[in-house]
Amino acid sequence: MKTVTFGEIMLRLTPTGYMRFFQDQNMVGTFGGGEANVAVSLANFGEEVAFVTKLPQNPIAEACLSQLQGFGVKVNHVARGGERMGIYFLEKGASCRPSKVVYDRAHSSISTACESDFDWREIFKGANWFHFTGITPALSDDLAKITYSALQIAKEMGLTVSCDLNYRKKLWSKEKACEVMSKLMPMVDLCICNEEDASDVFGIRSTGSDIESGVLNKEGYIEVAKKLVDKFAFRKVAITLRESFSANDNDWSAMLYDGEKAYFSKKYSLHIVDRVGGGDSFGAGLIYSLQKGKSNQDALEFAVAASALKHTIEGDYNRVSVDEVENLIKSGGSGRVQR
Amino acid sequence: MKTVTFGEIMLRLTPTGYMRFFQDQNMVGTFGGGEANVAVSLANFGEEVAFVTKLPQNPIAEACLSQLQGFGVKVNHVARGGERMGIYFLEKGASCRPSKVVYDRAHSSISTACESDFDWREIFKGANWFHFTGITPALSDDLAKITYSALQIAKEMGLTVSCDLNYRKKLWSKEKACEVMSKLMPMVDLCICNEEDASDVFGIRSTGSDIESGVLNKEGYIEVAKKLVDKFAFRKVAITLRESFSANDNDWSAMLYDGEKAYFSKKYSLHIVDRVGGGDSFGAGLIYSLQKGKSNQDALEFAVAASALKHTIEGDYNRVSVDEVENLIKSGGSGRVQR
Amino acid sequence: MKTVTFGEIMLRLTPTGYMRFFQDQNMVGTFGGGEANVAVSLANFGEEVAFVTKLPQNPIAEACLSQLQGFGVKVNHVARGGERMGIYFLEKGASCRPSKVVYDRAHSSISTACESDFDWREIFKGANWFHFTGITPALSDDLAKITYSALQIAKEMGLTVSCDLNYRKKLWSKEKACEVMSKLMPMVDLCICNEEDASDVFGIRSTGSDIESGVLNKEGYIEVAKKLVDKFAFRKVAITLRESFSANDNDWSAMLYDGEKAYFSKKYSLHIVDRVGGGDSFGAGLIYSLQKGKSNQDALEFAVAASALKHTIEGDYNRVSVDEVENLIKSGGSGRVQR
Amino acid sequence: MKTVTFGEIMLRLTPTGYMRFFQDQNMVGTFGGGEANVAVSLANFGEEVAFVTKLPQNPIAEACLSQLQGFGVKVNHVARGGERMGIYFLEKGASCRPSKVVYDRAHSSISTACESDFDWREIFKGANWFHFTGITPALSDDLAKITYSALQIAKEMGLTVSCDLNYRKKLWSKEKACEVMSKLMPMVDLCICNEEDASDVFGIRSTGSDIESGVLNKEGYIEVAKKLVDKFAFRKVAITLRESFSANDNDWSAMLYDGEKAYFSKKYSLHIVDRVGGGDSFGAGLIYSLQKGKSNQDALEFAVAASALKHTIEGDYNRVSVDEVENLIKSGGSGRVQR
Amino acid sequence: MKTVTFGEIMLRLTPTGYMRFFQDQNMVGTFGGGEANVAVSLANFGEEVAFVTKLPQNPIAEACLSQLQGFGVKVNHVARGGERMGIYFLEKGASCRPSKVVYDRAHSSISTACESDFDWREIFKGANWFHFTGITPALSDDLAKITYSALQIAKEMGLTVSCDLNYRKKLWSKEKACEVMSKLMPMVDLCICNEEDASDVFGIRSTGSDIESGVLNKEGYIEVAKKLVDKFAFRKVAITLRESFSANDNDWSAMLYDGEKAYFSKKYSLHIVDRVGGGDSFGAGLIYSLQKGKSNQDALEFAVAASALKHTIEGDYNRVSVDEVENLIKSGGSGRVQR
Amino acid sequence: MKTVTFGEIMLRLTPTGYMRFFQDQNMVGTFGGGEANVAVSLANFGEEVAFVTKLPQNPIAEACLSQLQGFGVKVNHVARGGERMGIYFLEKGASCRPSKVVYDRAHSSISTACESDFDWREIFKGANWFHFTGITPALSDDLAKITYSALQIAKEMGLTVSCDLNYRKKLWSKEKACEVMSKLMPMVDLCICNEEDASDVFGIRSTGSDIESGVLNKEGYIEVAKKLVDKFAFRKVAITLRESFSANDNDWSAMLYDGEKAYFSKKYSLHIVDRVGGGDSFGAGLIYSLQKGKSNQDALEFAVAASALKHTIEGDYNRVSVDEVENLIKSGGSGRVQR
Repeated sequence: MKTVTFGEIMLRLTPTGYMRFFQDQNMVGTFGGGEANVAVSLANFGEEVAFVTKLPQNPIAEACLSQLQGFGVKVNHVARGGERMGIYFLEKGASCRPSKVVYDRAHSSISTACESDFDWREIFKGANWFHFTGITPALSDDLAKITYSALQIAKEMGLTVSCDLNYRKKLWSKEKACEVMSKLMPMVDLCICNEEDASDVFGIRSTGSDIESGVLNKEGYIEVAKKLVDKFAFRKVAITLRESFSANDNDWSAMLYDGEKAYFSKKYSLHIVDRVGGGDSFGAGLIYSLQKGKSNQDALEFAVAASALKHTIEGDYNRVSVDEVENLIKSGGSGRVQR
Repeated sequence: MKTVTFGEIMLRLTPTGYMRFFQDQNMVGTFGGGEANVAVSLANFGEEVAFVTKLPQNPIAEACLSQLQGFGVKVNHVARGGERMGIYFLEKGASCRPSKVVYDRAHSSISTACESDFDWREIFKGANWFHFTGITPALSDDLAKITYSALQIAKEMGLTVSCDLNYRKKLWSKEKACEVMSKLMPMVDLCICNEEDASDVFGIRSTGSDIESGVLNKEGYIEVAKKLVDKFAFRKVAITLRESFSANDNDWSAMLYDGEKAYFSKKYSLHIVDRVGGGDSFGAGLIYSLQKGKSNQDALEFAVAASALKHTIEGDYNRVSVDEVENLIKSGGSGRVQR
Repeated sequence: MKTVTFGEIMLRLTPTGYMRFFQDQNMVGTFGGGEANVAVSLANFGEEVAFVTKLPQNPIAEACLSQLQGFGVKVNHVARGGERMGIYFLEKGASCRPSKVVYDRAHSSISTACESDFDWREIFKGANWFHFTGITPALSDDLAKITYSALQIAKEMGLTVSCDLNYRKKLWSKEKACEVMSKLMPMVDLCICNEEDASDVFGIRSTGSDIESGVLNKEGYIEVAKKLVDKFAFRKVAITLRESFSANDNDWSAMLYDGEKAYFSKKYSLHIVDRVGGGDSFGAGLIYSLQKGKSNQDALEFAVAASALKHTIEGDYNRVSVDEVENLIKSGGSGRVQR
Repeated sequence: MKTVTFGEIMLRLTPTGYMRFFQDQNMVGTFGGGEANVAVSLANFGEEVAFVTKLPQNPIAEACLSQLQGFGVKVNHVARGGERMGIYFLEKGASCRPSKVVYDRAHSSISTACESDFDWREIFKGANWFHFTGITPALSDDLAKITYSALQIAKEMGLTVSCDLNYRKKLWSKEKACEVMSKLMPMVDLCICNEEDASDVFGIRSTGSDIESGVLNKEGYIEVAKKLVDKFAFRKVAITLRESFSANDNDWSAMLYDGEKAYFSKKYSLHIVDRVGGGDSFGAGLIYSLQKGKSNQDALEFAVAASALKHTIEGDYNRVSVDEVENLIKSGGSGRVQR
Repeated sequence: MKTVTFGEIMLRLTPTGYMRFFQDQNMVGTFGGGEANVAVSLANFGEEVAFVTKLPQNPIAEACLSQLQGFGVKVNHVARGGERMGIYFLEKGASCRPSKVVYDRAHSSISTACESDFDWREIFKGANWFHFTGITPALSDDLAKITYSALQIAKEMGLTVSCDLNYRKKLWSKEKACEVMSKLMPMVDLCICNEEDASDVFGIRSTGSDIESGVLNKEGYIEVAKKLVDKFAFRKVAITLRESFSANDNDWSAMLYDGEKAYFSKKYSLHIVDRVGGGDSFGAGLIYSLQKGKSNQDALEFAVAASALKHTIEGDYNRVSVDEVENLIKSGGSGRVQR
Repeated sequence: MKTVTFGEIMLRLTPTGYMRFFQDQNMVGTFGGGEANVAVSLANFGEEVAFVTKLPQNPIAEACLSQLQGFGVKVNHVARGGERMGIYFLEKGASCRPSKVVYDRAHSSISTACESDFDWREIFKGANWFHFTGITPALSDDLAKITYSALQIAKEMGLTVSCDLNYRKKLWSKEKACEVMSKLMPMVDLCICNEEDASDVFGIRSTGSDIESGVLNKEGYIEVAKKLVDKFAFRKVAITLRESFSANDNDWSAMLYDGEKAYFSKKYSLHIVDRVGGGDSFGAGLIYSLQKGKSNQDALEFAVAASALKHTIEGDYNRVSVDEVENLIKSGGSGRVQR
């Protein structure tokens, strides 16, 4: 089983602890991005996985690739060239103060990539699964086309395709997102999203839901999933359910809908260390467990437990093993010391 | 609108994280003090504000002034001379372990200042508001006199005056505080305090309240405010209401009484990053919103939201903008990431 | 009153904050071990205490001894020689992710110590109390014998003996533990344990308890204590009661049984900074307060409050004074700043 | 006396100590740029100075402005808008390993600024001196035009103009630099450069010099200065003379030529803490001392001493006072502790 | 061209900066060991290289392997099992205070490895070069045998073999070293050492040399190399020449002898950041350049320049590229900033 | 042999690395003072030593005492009370930028101590040596008297007395110093100073010396020593000889004069890590070696080597053992790694 993920990876700069931007001079420099995060998760689960992107020829990009390689992610199909790596600045929120993201991703190498940078037939050799997020086609018109080509070849070569909708309003308008994504979705097997994404990109929403309120509405989620399946014939739709009480405290669960039945996971009450990459770790957990042939319920529980753990780990990447996820499922998260 | 604040600013030395004093060698050196904190808050809200104090001629004081200037606080009326800057050591508490403050503020330049150090007519030029706390007159007999003179001139020149009672038992006895403060209060328009202050300084308390218990008693607070207005003819009295469950977890709200009606704010459940300066940030929020002509309820909500945010920020200073405070009022503090 | 404690002290290496092992290069190097932790607690309570162990002749061990000496712990009976100091790596858990301990303690100087390393008659001169944990006899057959000898001489010389069962499955099997410990227990006056220890070492458990569930069963604990007293004629049995909701949030209380009556302490809801050494700080609190002649209830409250505070302090050692423990008992842990 | 400087300011990201890029996760985030560095130097010398640039509307730029304001630099004419702030990554060299700079400055707000962003007549009100470097016109064709306009108005309004040639080969070719700079130079009074700049931009070089060899050739420098004066009628030309023995050890001195006579400064043997900004601190020292009416020799000594001190200070900015520079001139740099 | 290196890799724990052991709590945790360092150097030069060792099954070892993998070193032949990873504590010296190493490497997995842990025919598939140091056979009698077997198979399969003598007096006596190494040497093609090693292991020394004096004796080095070639029929002998003036300042050069002629390299005056791994980086440079078919003089210059750079880099590993080494050879180390 | 030292100990606050004051928020908090530094040195040499001072009752002072106790210094005669602990801020210089000290030591507990705080007969029980510096009597008139009393009793009880002149111009005028010190000197056996001290306090200087020039004048130093012996009948006079080339680079040696002959030590070229406490470590080395009965030349070499090492260690305290000093004397400081 080999998975290929495709998208942008950025340098992430975070003040230490709960400092505001430049409250002191110290920053933590790590790397991350939706599809790279999925790749690292899968590598940490022991899976073969390749990450495809375009990065410039400079020491910052080298460091990024070296770290991915350290996790065991294959990076031999990364195109090199272009001007720069995207950057995002993250200020960690606390209590009633929300986290803040400042993007500096325009003109990145990947956003200026062209068709000839990627030889999909070569890249997909030996692969069974292709994963991307709604960020990739949003980066440029060329990338929308490249993604479309990749999907076509992926389907042709028999790969399963998953997509995390991941709508980013700073990258494109809802109209543009709807137009582009609607062309890509018919080639997608597994759609991952949260309620906001479905609403933002496709205008699909349930009756009476209130995203900001933090109150879950099970029926509403099933409704959204059904509408998505009706529209794009997805084989499965997974929706993550975040109930945000504060920047530190969230409840976290998810739903998986297979066109017939909706499965709801255990809900975790999280005291958050770092929530960026939480959704990506869910996606990775789901891809892993579906590849392993787990049942819908078990696959969902694995994905939710994996992403619950992600919230306790600094940085975008989910640094957990399959054993740790399974122990969490068994223990229920009581947090006793493991000696 | 220009505000002038007057008082002591100290060097604050804090071990990193939740370390006890000198558990390791690292300390974080910042600056703060009741009136300086109010000035920084106002500058961060975009207001014109001057901070008045006396500081020695040395690189520590230069650094302090440079930081204030960086926030946009005017420091051109800071008197220079004297022996030293006050210092306080702060050990951050956690859970059932309370924070600990060790003061080393005796003999500071401001506590040995004399009348001639401050030309209030000059300082107040173009100003509409004067703010001080009960710490300033407690620092020395001379400072009590200087504060008295400042108030007289402020009233003469038509400034609104606010005072945060801020009783510090290590600086003076309750009797001395009552005697001195009672002379100053008649010139104060807006009185800010917590229940303990009113009781410590003026012996004013409600029937049946229990400060340590952490249980709020709305009627009691109204009673205290009424008594204060009766005694000193304040135009408004604001009382902050802290319910302390542990060093990490507090509920935070406030009351504003305008002589006729008492307004109670929304209550925030805070997971605390740093609570020092919480009261000061409330005062600044109230001064700002009253200056902007907000209604009593709106002014109070702004002040409480601003100070709720302060509890999530390291150091004495409230590093938040008006936008951030207003976003909190709107969102209610669910802490979703702002991308 | 002088106490002697005997056991292993290790170098502890912890990533900073909530980092996973080697997520970055920084580690915090401190020292700790069950009996050393008890010694430091007692020294911080102002008591005379000696710690006995064996350490190699190298700068790491020197640093360890210098730190103990800084707390006022006597280290003049520490044997020197052997190959190495034991090490343990601790990764701090958060929320649903448990803390992780990797031991590297084999071949340590203490585990290869021999009878002639310790002259117990000399060591016990002027002492009234001897404390050890179930880790010490688990380290080697020789140490089991040395502990036996120490106990014999302690009883001969009239010392009170306390033992914290502290079962470590990586050091010995339950069968071996039962065999060795059963020989030592008749010389023990005060037995300290948690429910798991009693079950693991002696197969003593209450009916219907579920340790993982985190739900307390008062009757069950009394049953366990009674069985222990029945079996080994302990004068007192203390059981710590940890209810683990997550790696960050635990409830913490304890029970003391004197052969006739069971006393239950106040329960503390802890937001944890560092829970390693929590049990040791309870033991130290109990030893201290029993030595001071406190009543059973008061002794228990002191021990629980002391160990509640430990959970708020980085490192193995409980860096609190008697005053701080007593203030916590009085205040109930509301965490107000102490100015 | 008021000076205006105009150019780019960037976020600078540096690994801690002598770490290579991303050897660990920690980075130090500061700000700097040729003209901003000059402005900060002058502010630290107690002079009135304004820095003009264009910066985006985001918290990173706010932090940058707040720091400049903390030094006392006026930032009220900074245009706001555009996409991003330029960034440069700096890896500090040691011994035989050179420092490494990775630029990520394309598409910065200043490089996309237009004529209407700056109202030079307003900006120059009350000013006597205008300073820029060869980096500013290199950033874009528009900026070359804007610089030209600024110079015209500066001359019209009677300001003295200084320019540091500062050739950057990654920004433009030598041919382009020569073409653009040749149009600007006739309006410049004081030209600051090193030997490489004169050669790179104008093809002016002395006979027999060897920049890499690190051996000084006094006659050659005079020859270069004379040619520059002949070509552009500068009133003065200053050339900094760096002899680089290793990344840690440089000799540092300078020459000032007034069209008639060449003055050479004392030479400092530097053990370098951070050499970035060394040339800028020389420029600032020269501007300051010429403004103060110092003699050519004294002005040069001040500038060289000021920049010698810069090499001992972390970050781009020269954090030294006039007193400190003068003490260095007096003491000759023996480095005795100042108690 | 593929190289295989075989030996121990240890966890290295270093206080920050120039702190003495445990002067504060912070330690830097990295990994290193003679043969691993060579492997990382070669990977950084872009070469295919595999490192062979034995490591325990725990998160510390995982981190170690992940870092090696990040550099591109193949770790698929690393045996897993045993008790522990070796550790060494390094205190960095300064000026007249020498660096200090405390080893805690006994009982490591590699030192308890057995023949069946390594399938050399499999490991050497596709390889042309095998490298080990004198540390490997010193770790245990079994390892001496394993090394012997590895060498036999390497020769059989046509690999070139290099050995760095690397005598460690804490691992074995000179007599034992001589006995074991004398059996291995006939299978070695390239012998790398410093003057002390040749003397310690084989009693080979030149007349009149004085290692401690720091004065080079070219003839003496040639004499030593000749004697080594005479005794073991090495094809080449390389000797590194360190002249130590202080813990910070060393001169560094080397000699290569090909049985006929001795080549001496340029000498670098180093201001040291971290000298551990200096010799290993020389070995790697030599292996690389000989594999590339460089002339003796060029190979030697490359190796010396590579290792000169190592002295400027924190940690055991030489984090430099071929380009950087070649730039140093060209520039001679003047340390100008690379923009 | 037991030594008693008497003086002030202060909290020392230092920015990290070569940062200027408050360039960032991080400070390193350690403790030190002339006589405390001598006490720690002696304890590190394995000697019995007591440090006498007065400290306030607060956690800062507790930490200070705990650290001294960790080194093995007896602190049972430290008086407790008063307002505060003295503080000094130290900014580390580099190259041509000198270190900077800002004192905040007025009103410290020791400077307000009175005669009854110290029972010298009790303190000196079992002691043979008393050491103080010229700082102690400079702190207040009372301290001058207390020092006088201490000296009288010391002589009465047969202790050898040593004094380091240590003139501090911020504490007293040269006239006052001369007056007070002249009364104390007749009771001193060993006088330690540098050339500046002798000149500042007693107006004793050699002909033609130039302290700032950094050039040694052996005859001049002998002349100064002779004049001191003539005036006060010291048994021995030791003069430290610092040649300061920059804040990083000093040469360091010393002279010992026994009334008949002058001995000059080896000279060390130091690359400085932290030079504060250099003189104190010399004093301690001399006291130690004279107590051990070393010859004048050997005692001097030991003292100079010990203090050379001090310059390589962060903080005021000299953290070296007798072995390390002796190894330096043997090796001459070539700085080879000690494995």
